[in-house]
Amino acid sequence: MPDTLYDVAILGSGPGGLQAAIHASRKKAKVLMLGRIDNSSLFWAHVENYCCQIMISGEEILKTGRMQAESFGAEFRDEDVLAIEPDGKLFSIKLESGDMIKAKAIILATGSSRNKLKVPGEKDLLGKGVSYCVDCDAGFYRNEVVAVAGCRSAAAGGAVALTNFASEVHLYCKELDIAKGLREQLDTTGVIVREGIQITEIKGKNAVESVLLDDGSTQSVAGVFIELGAKGVLELTAMLGVQLDENMKYIEADKKQQTNVTGVYAAGDICGPPLQMAKAVGEGCVAGIEAATYAKKLELD
Amino acid sequence: MPDTLYDVAILGSGPGGLQAAIHASRKKAKVLMLGRIDNSSLFWAHVENYCCQIMISGEEILKTGRMQAESFGAEFRDEDVLAIEPDGKLFSIKLESGDMIKAKAIILATGSSRNKLKVPGEKDLLGKGVSYCVDCDAGFYRNEVVAVAGCRSAAAGGAVALTNFASEVHLYCKELDIAKGLREQLDTTGVIVREGIQITEIKGKNAVESVLLDDGSTQSVAGVFIELGAKGVLELTAMLGVQLDENMKYIEADKKQQTNVTGVYAAGDICGPPLQMAKAVGEGCVAGIEAATYAKKLELD
Repeated sequence: MPDTLYDVAILGSGPGGLQAAIHASRKKAKVLMLGRIDNSSLFWAHVENYCCQIMISGEEILKTGRMQAESFGAEFRDEDVLAIEPDGKLFSIKLESGDMIKAKAIILATGSSRNKLKVPGEKDLLGKGVSYCVDCDAGFYRNEVVAVAGCRSAAAGGAVALTNFASEVHLYCKELDIAKGLREQLDTTGVIVREGIQITEIKGKNAVESVLLDDGSTQSVAGVFIELGAKGVLELTAMLGVQLDENMKYIEADKKQQTNVTGVYAAGDICGPPLQMAKAVGEGCVAGIEAATYAKKLELD
Repeated sequence: MPDTLYDVAILGSGPGGLQAAIHASRKKAKVLMLGRIDNSSLFWAHVENYCCQIMISGEEILKTGRMQAESFGAEFRDEDVLAIEPDGKLFSIKLESGDMIKAKAIILATGSSRNKLKVPGEKDLLGKGVSYCVDCDAGFYRNEVVAVAGCRSAAAGGAVALTNFASEVHLYCKELDIAKGLREQLDTTGVIVREGIQITEIKGKNAVESVLLDDGSTQSVAGVFIELGAKGVLELTAMLGVQLDENMKYIEADKKQQTNVTGVYAAGDICGPPLQMAKAVGEGCVAGIEAATYAKKLELD
């Protein structure tokens, strides 16, 4: 096999891709994982809901996972993929550096990027009080005051879940667009609904301290949850002809994590909610085993 | 809610159940996990292929996961379930102790028990060289001589995978029952196929040292992999009317880990291969979120 031909190329640098790399490598597949480690949303997070590790930083998780995958023979390149296309029975992949590689099977594990609030302070305070995932980070705000930004079920449901931990939950939204049952839950759980009011800035030095609002007032908070949904994954998938769900946001994969394109698998957030590390590694495990098996079989043909 | 009514009851003590307990508890569900911790096959294992932890004992994983789930409010009882049946919109569960509890949703996560070789030494040396999972434990036998017992694709494929690590792989089997391609792989990878010969005893003091064979000879080995498939999960599932796959071995769950019975979810090895911890936690994550959401909705009806 030439140096630039791989059994399995994994696009993405998060836990789904790492688990796929671990399982595919252990099946003797020649594996290359592509992507910058700090592109994974996990890199900036703290994780407390992934079995069975207590309170660990995303950065630590990703670095350990990479060492682990390397110990089984997986290779890594800290480069993004510019283009990818079918090439006979193989796939051709063009990297940032201009290098070209080929692979027998592809695993798409590039995650999904959360929609941003686009206010000052959001980027600087990411991981220091600003979060895009209530399910992941709610537990860090026991007895604290927190803000949630968003108008749909993810934001309202997130606000309700936060009342389990936080002492006070403020939900900021221009106009709520949720079902009656959820609206009632906001009331019964005591969420402070600030409809019509929006966050214009997130303030704090080393950690979130307050939010500035468009009515000119300030609210002290320890955390800000931005629940505005996730961006689609159109580009690379379109090049491959991979089918997306009806909202064109996530990849449709079957229980073997196979897409509609032979040889192309998908794992993790790119396959849709719940956007959780545990789900990502589960799908990565299956995708890694299936892609390695597919690549080995291709060899025999 | 009375003390003995739970939102979600989880049957099983392994990583799939733990991940479900973590996610369901964080959604404010009242969660009870049932089962003896050392009933999980993981308890006796060492894990090296689960992202992103390097070389950790199954016992340590399970104990950490339990502490983690308890920190979010999940309750545990070290008891097996004797009977379970639908009770209106709820489920009634009878425990070993004779206690009865009720739950709004059930998660079946009792795993699948591997078929045994039934020879002296097998039980005593479990976790000390005896393993039921090549994918999990192959890496512990770098440059060692190992034995594999079994006649079908899991055993033959396992033997091939082991050649990646071990210096010598002996496959013991009365009569091989595998496809031609796999038979060829046995040859090309140098597996020593001992067809017609069976292991009659596994010997060793604190760790596996050798296997006794039915031709009277002895083979020195550091590990014995028993790949004879898994037992079915008929009993509890039959009480609930849960649908199994065509071989009556595993539960048919959809992508939301829901079974054909409303309110009953499943996660982990009980849902079929790959029998891997990573897949179990992925399914547990989804099952925990879905079961908690279902239980909360039932409340509103």
